[in-house]
Amino acid sequence: MRTTTGWQSDDRSTALTRATIERRDLRADDLAVRVDYCGVCHSDLHSVHGLTGKPTAGLVPGHEFTGTVTAVGTAVTGFAPGDAVAVGTIVDSCGDCPMCRAGQENFCHEGAVSTYGGTDRVDGTPTLGGYSREYVLRDRFAYHLPDGLDPAGAAPLMCAGITVWEPLRALAVGSGSRVAVVGLGGLGHLAVKLAASLGAEVTVLSRTPGKADDARGLGAADLLVTTDASQLAAARDRFDLVLDTVSAPHDLSPLLRTVALNGTLSVLGLPVETPVKIMELTFGRKHLSSSGTGGRLHTAELLAYCAEHGITADIELLPSARVEEALNRLERGDVRYRFVLDLSDLG
Amino acid sequence: MRTTTGWQSDDRSTALTRATIERRDLRADDLAVRVDYCGVCHSDLHSVHGLTGKPTAGLVPGHEFTGTVTAVGTAVTGFAPGDAVAVGTIVDSCGDCPMCRAGQENFCHEGAVSTYGGTDRVDGTPTLGGYSREYVLRDRFAYHLPDGLDPAGAAPLMCAGITVWEPLRALAVGSGSRVAVVGLGGLGHLAVKLAASLGAEVTVLSRTPGKADDARGLGAADLLVTTDASQLAAARDRFDLVLDTVSAPHDLSPLLRTVALNGTLSVLGLPVETPVKIMELTFGRKHLSSSGTGGRLHTAELLAYCAEHGITADIELLPSARVEEALNRLERGDVRYRFVLDLSDLG
Repeated sequence: MRTTTGWQSDDRSTALTRATIERRDLRADDLAVRVDYCGVCHSDLHSVHGLTGKPTAGLVPGHEFTGTVTAVGTAVTGFAPGDAVAVGTIVDSCGDCPMCRAGQENFCHEGAVSTYGGTDRVDGTPTLGGYSREYVLRDRFAYHLPDGLDPAGAAPLMCAGITVWEPLRALAVGSGSRVAVVGLGGLGHLAVKLAASLGAEVTVLSRTPGKADDARGLGAADLLVTTDASQLAAARDRFDLVLDTVSAPHDLSPLLRTVALNGTLSVLGLPVETPVKIMELTFGRKHLSSSGTGGRLHTAELLAYCAEHGITADIELLPSARVEEALNRLERGDVRYRFVLDLSDLG
Repeated sequence: MRTTTGWQSDDRSTALTRATIERRDLRADDLAVRVDYCGVCHSDLHSVHGLTGKPTAGLVPGHEFTGTVTAVGTAVTGFAPGDAVAVGTIVDSCGDCPMCRAGQENFCHEGAVSTYGGTDRVDGTPTLGGYSREYVLRDRFAYHLPDGLDPAGAAPLMCAGITVWEPLRALAVGSGSRVAVVGLGGLGHLAVKLAASLGAEVTVLSRTPGKADDARGLGAADLLVTTDASQLAAARDRFDLVLDTVSAPHDLSPLLRTVALNGTLSVLGLPVETPVKIMELTFGRKHLSSSGTGGRLHTAELLAYCAEHGITADIELLPSARVEEALNRLERGDVRYRFVLDLSDLG
């Protein structure tokens, strides 16, 4: 068994404590990765508070990180010590179901293994996340970090980025597409950058008029204030794709009315049961969809795309010892647009 | 003012009475149509019972009919007396909103005028439907009935047919597509015929195992019994498009689980608010959609397609005087697969 240091939650509070945690000895297809940078995702906060169904005892959050390979198992051929890598929200899957074969391991029929709060497929141990100095995982779920991508700014691509990238790609967003992004946070700001880069005309829908300059700076053409009914009404049937990144419960009907004929409202932040007025879908043959994180195929594609187009997250980098501050500020929505922890203070 | 004879409901019962009703004098762009055959749609029954929001007093149902032009207004150039025509669920729209300009007059922003229970855009009078010997309508909403299409069997194409055709076409169903049709009634049997004709592999989902032979006769490859959880479980993530024609309230989750990656559940019969578990959409990036009837563009396309491929509804033809029997049997689900009224008994 290997040991490393991480930030652990035991009491459902954001006051994580520095702890020694165990990592498994390398299997033949394993990598050991020194974690350099780990993004702070809103679901980390939910998990700490016990809202995601993951066990809270001994929880080590963190599922979007970049780092450096330090050791490889005997059967590993694709990686070598010193390689820069990125790891996302899943670290294993069955590899054999239709979803895995389609490159959508995130939808594995047997359940993909979450990077933290999951259960290892081989030995049944709980997975502990990237708020730690070392991570051990199966090589298939590590990705080479392309040259030229800042490793701190690239970390959030592995959850926030791929979550918005998958629907953008599945719906073939490109030049001429009209895309709305609801909520300008970790997911939203990357959605604006990526959709604009793909050639779409991007509109931000936000409760906060003051974010208009930021939205334009990220590549949006416009910002509509969602609390202003007249602004939403003027956008009736306008958008081919509405990416809804808001995680608080909210009424989908006003958003569905802004979706164009044959278009899609993709709900990315709301993992609950919600009432849907079928008639809001009928008039315009609109689609309600959802998606979450991504599989190997599109994750590799996203990293290559971001390297080519110089896209990373806009981050606030903090030493990992300030993780409590990061979580508390995230809880208040006080971040533009993603906290990333620098794990080098763990030694 | 012109007068004709029709079947009218006044007391929310299916005992319609024969009555003299008025039709307007022809405007410049109007046609007068002798109604020969009118399909009996499930929404006629709902309207009679006061469940669709249409006024029930003086209601004359009927919104899928074929007939013969008997007179044309002074500005009509596309039709002449003697022409065989078909009319569907809408008889006017604004013509200028984005939906009308896209050929989706059924989604008109000002509200398309329903063939019955609607309000005429010019004079504000209530529209009375096709359970009558004559109908007067704007020429734009009549369609030439192609040679070779049986006018009785073609009548249901104008509501049941176009309602299933629009999602089939919008989602580009063709060779290699896997389509499920839930419910084998008026809409369902046409969905099977049309999807199979387009080259799709069609599966019927039904509560009734005894419909398997019928399903295959219509072109389906298979029938799955929806009350058998193991049959549905075996169809997990299988269908690119599930066309749900069931109008009674039902849980969408078991159907969503049969939708393939990036596929769509299109709800065609359920015009209410329903709870949706977002997670059922997330795992597989599935889409929930809805649609209803059709616009001019695809209605004309459907008629041409059906003439080319010899597709009409499987009907039971009754003299219009037996309308009460038709409605009562429809209410019990006792029809394979659509009643059509022969209006010639009205003189």
